[in-house]
Amino acid sequence: MEGFRVLEIKQSVFENNDREADKVRAELKKNGTFLLNLMSSPGSGKTTTLKATIAALKDEFNIGVMEADIDSSVDAATIEKTGAKVIQLHTGGMCHLDASMTQQGLDGLGVNDIDLAILENVGNLVCPAEFDTGACKNAMILSVPEGDDKPLKYPLMFSICDVLLINKIDVLPYFDFSMENVEKYAKRLNPNIKIIPISARTGEGVDKFADWLREETKAWLEK
Amino acid sequence: MEGFRVLEIKQSVFENNDREADKVRAELKKNGTFLLNLMSSPGSGKTTTLKATIAALKDEFNIGVMEADIDSSVDAATIEKTGAKVIQLHTGGMCHLDASMTQQGLDGLGVNDIDLAILENVGNLVCPAEFDTGACKNAMILSVPEGDDKPLKYPLMFSICDVLLINKIDVLPYFDFSMENVEKYAKRLNPNIKIIPISARTGEGVDKFADWLREETKAWLEK
Repeated sequence: MEGFRVLEIKQSVFENNDREADKVRAELKKNGTFLLNLMSSPGSGKTTTLKATIAALKDEFNIGVMEADIDSSVDAATIEKTGAKVIQLHTGGMCHLDASMTQQGLDGLGVNDIDLAILENVGNLVCPAEFDTGACKNAMILSVPEGDDKPLKYPLMFSICDVLLINKIDVLPYFDFSMENVEKYAKRLNPNIKIIPISARTGEGVDKFADWLREETKAWLEK
Repeated sequence: MEGFRVLEIKQSVFENNDREADKVRAELKKNGTFLLNLMSSPGSGKTTTLKATIAALKDEFNIGVMEADIDSSVDAATIEKTGAKVIQLHTGGMCHLDASMTQQGLDGLGVNDIDLAILENVGNLVCPAEFDTGACKNAMILSVPEGDDKPLKYPLMFSICDVLLINKIDVLPYFDFSMENVEKYAKRLNPNIKIIPISARTGEGVDKFADWLREETKAWLEK
């Protein structure tokens, strides 16, 4: 039997999500926990990226992961094998998490012993961008097979993220994908966005994402 | 200058979307127009698939395409080159189309001269599945790089579609993707779903999708 818990998330009752999000961050700060919100389309490689990132950072931080999914628990089962603390959140059809739903997840996971918490949001390039989860930083993944025109079509997501991981660079030779175009389109929307090309499968570039996450976590914990 | 129109879609005011969807279908029937609703994640290849499908069917039907996107018009510009009638629908941040929004699109496109209309829905595997657009049939695309576990994670989408296109089969050798798994998971949710492997890029399998669409369109027009 799997060791992780499955939590059925309830619809939010708060009207002012931004205020709730600030409360989540204040609570995280008090508790000494950094929270990253990781977003992407379905199948961009969020879970595989997390696996590789946890492997790189697990000796330095106590890591906890919240796997949000509409219905299944396959991702929590994958992450559990890394040794990180994990909880599966079921959104019951909901297409995103807001701050109060994230707080339910944090309560369910239990973060007293966690330095670095990661929320794997529902696979969706539209709705999760509209809701501040209360995370300290936002990251997104765009994978090579999705195409280099995505910042044009899903501008809000690219605008609100601190980091853009370009995943599946190992298959670049088989797709018409211009790294220059993505960079140009994304920086036009968000001049400060940090872009890191990776292959979660081969591990290439994951160290650079781990470096960024290490620095951000330390900065948050020390502030 | 581009020849297609861009329509800013307004939020729906109807409470009973299912009733509105039935009205859309009745109107399509009266008008002699078949409407296909095409859904998928961002970057699965909806537009490329449409291009190849239009090329296969344009001598048999008058084809009209509604390209729904949050903000950009790149897809309508692509489809315009096929010679099909096209309109770009901007949802203004909305993550799906419902029946009344689809009716706005049909009115904007003008379907008196159209036998086969296709709605390319917003790239999103979650929300569009929840709203009947009024289309006669629903199709979805899952592309090989997204992974074979997607029916487990986005079950509603696979449940409501008549056809599942598995796109990008030309890159099957570079991904861990089991066609058998997808078939098993999808048919468990939806025993009647028709599964057609294609490569929109090379054209492989597109004739089979065109065959299905030809039969469905003819059946609708003759009924």
